[in-house]
Amino acid sequence: MGFYLNRISKLRSGLKNKNIDAALIIPGPNLRYFTGFKVEAFERLLTLIIPTYSSELSLITPMLEYERAKALGIEGLSIIGYRDDEDPYEILVKRLKDAGAEVVGVEGFMPFRTVSKLLKAGFRLTEVDDLVYSMRITKDTYEVELMRRASRIDEEAIKEGFRNLKSGLTEKEVSRIVREKAEELGAEEVPFCVVQSGPNTALPHAESSSRRIEVGDVVLFDVGVRVEGYFADITRTVVLGEPKPEHMKIYNIVKEAQERAIKAVKPGVTAESIDATARNIIEESGYGEYFIHRTGHGLGLEVHEEPYIRAGNKMVLKEGMAFTVEPGIYLPGKFGVRIEDDIVVTKDGFEDLTKLSKSLTDIS
Amino acid sequence: MGFYLNRISKLRSGLKNKNIDAALIIPGPNLRYFTGFKVEAFERLLTLIIPTYSSELSLITPMLEYERAKALGIEGLSIIGYRDDEDPYEILVKRLKDAGAEVVGVEGFMPFRTVSKLLKAGFRLTEVDDLVYSMRITKDTYEVELMRRASRIDEEAIKEGFRNLKSGLTEKEVSRIVREKAEELGAEEVPFCVVQSGPNTALPHAESSSRRIEVGDVVLFDVGVRVEGYFADITRTVVLGEPKPEHMKIYNIVKEAQERAIKAVKPGVTAESIDATARNIIEESGYGEYFIHRTGHGLGLEVHEEPYIRAGNKMVLKEGMAFTVEPGIYLPGKFGVRIEDDIVVTKDGFEDLTKLSKSLTDIS
Repeated sequence: MGFYLNRISKLRSGLKNKNIDAALIIPGPNLRYFTGFKVEAFERLLTLIIPTYSSELSLITPMLEYERAKALGIEGLSIIGYRDDEDPYEILVKRLKDAGAEVVGVEGFMPFRTVSKLLKAGFRLTEVDDLVYSMRITKDTYEVELMRRASRIDEEAIKEGFRNLKSGLTEKEVSRIVREKAEELGAEEVPFCVVQSGPNTALPHAESSSRRIEVGDVVLFDVGVRVEGYFADITRTVVLGEPKPEHMKIYNIVKEAQERAIKAVKPGVTAESIDATARNIIEESGYGEYFIHRTGHGLGLEVHEEPYIRAGNKMVLKEGMAFTVEPGIYLPGKFGVRIEDDIVVTKDGFEDLTKLSKSLTDIS
Repeated sequence: MGFYLNRISKLRSGLKNKNIDAALIIPGPNLRYFTGFKVEAFERLLTLIIPTYSSELSLITPMLEYERAKALGIEGLSIIGYRDDEDPYEILVKRLKDAGAEVVGVEGFMPFRTVSKLLKAGFRLTEVDDLVYSMRITKDTYEVELMRRASRIDEEAIKEGFRNLKSGLTEKEVSRIVREKAEELGAEEVPFCVVQSGPNTALPHAESSSRRIEVGDVVLFDVGVRVEGYFADITRTVVLGEPKPEHMKIYNIVKEAQERAIKAVKPGVTAESIDATARNIIEESGYGEYFIHRTGHGLGLEVHEEPYIRAGNKMVLKEGMAFTVEPGIYLPGKFGVRIEDDIVVTKDGFEDLTKLSKSLTDIS
């Protein structure tokens, strides 16, 4: 539990430097990062209040999460439960006003519903995402270990999908096999488990459909697994049966782009340079216009966080940063290929958390 | 597809009445309601722009959702795709400014990240949730039919859980059985599938744990199922083996409260009166302090929406409104009981979409 209070105290220093009187942290990855509280409050207000004017720490929560909030066992956290016939915004505003707060830090996804009430009450709002993400962006050894564990489960689950691939199964059926394996192996959650086949693979980020997989199809697995909140996010593309020459050609370009980009990872280089490494290879091969997304995204308590591996991001990589490297080529109406590994920046290079082999046909 | 344009045109009239120049609709239930687009854009901006100053309709989307947006086939929708190295907020602000928009309507969950950019650009923001929810709150016959279908699946899945209940299984294992059944029966999604046992049942809204179920345990199932986006949300509480007298006593109070509250549903009565019916029965039995949440919540494209069935909500029920009725009693450290049906207000009373029997011991 001690590390939660350490993180909060580090945030407090950052808030003070920016003259922010208090930060509000709502359900989501940041609340989990600072308290371990995994909770969804839906439309109800639930917020941690981290003031800089005092060392108090409080949580406003609907009564129905009161017991679970107490069970967090965070030293010095005072829990203010409210009933459904009480107005939590009044409680929040009063608490901040009584303490003389003027500048309130909020997260980028704080909803307008709450924002508008705080603005109306006269507070100045400022986004604290930069501050929080600057803390979360480098992972400590325990966080990396959780991501390693998530990767092992993710890989075994995808392999289970490979082994069970056969003509006639639907994408959804294969997806279910993969998901069950991940759950059986102890995944806390499997937030996405996409299996696409044939022309569907040309649509990045679509879902598993009821399409029946046929011999000769390109099949793409993109699976996210969480362990204690931390993500693995792995994509593999294979062919069921004999690949066509075009499959092999595209696959090899993507694989080359992905592997060269990974090898370029080390402290001191920029995020955009990693993107450029992958993108140049694909462009030089003549498929630049079919690589329609960035090369990767940071990974941790969220599946998309900094550092984004994209053109224009001049962020310099540092030890402990973790992100995906996942170039792809998508030929509309035909097929798509994407290969995705999870990478952590080490002191003098990188660790590839993803050990799963990269072969277009190795699905036994 | 015609009904999407009808809904948009109805929204336009409402916006005009409120002198709102354009509404922004981001991924979530409202975007689905107006376009059928089921999409998650994570931290990327994706927004439908519904102006009142012209009949144009446009969607700003990351390139990687461009193809799926096109596939919606909505007449007159112009799709503006942006690449990861472009700033979508600039595109949005320019578009609104060029048209002379001043007042922009946003959803309650529009994130501060976007809100702050719009405020900085000089727009006045106003929440459009009331307007949109006033449309969504009464369901048409097609929407009710989808909820009926979701209920059938939900019930069959819970029954599968009943049949497989046995000593030694963990809550998670039973949850998986229920989830698989729901998916097998064609659920689009099973957003939650909570199985709790023993003292865990005293914690409303906790998750399925690794606790092994024992003979004599109270076991609670709370399962959400979606069909074409529309929810069923059903809770049943049973005992594995012989119930204790206290189990029966509490169960009968909750059942009485639930059934009496349901029978009170008809057009013209208030939401709070339904809550009061359930709450009075539980209070008169001496367990008022252990009924720690509202009696129910509206149901539709969201699992929590208006009308909320709670003290203080003077909303008058109308034909087509749909909501849960789910009183509960939670005895900390011992056990909890909740029973939840999905109810639609009809012309002269109610339809209970949930047909699953309510018995503490009928799990065969």
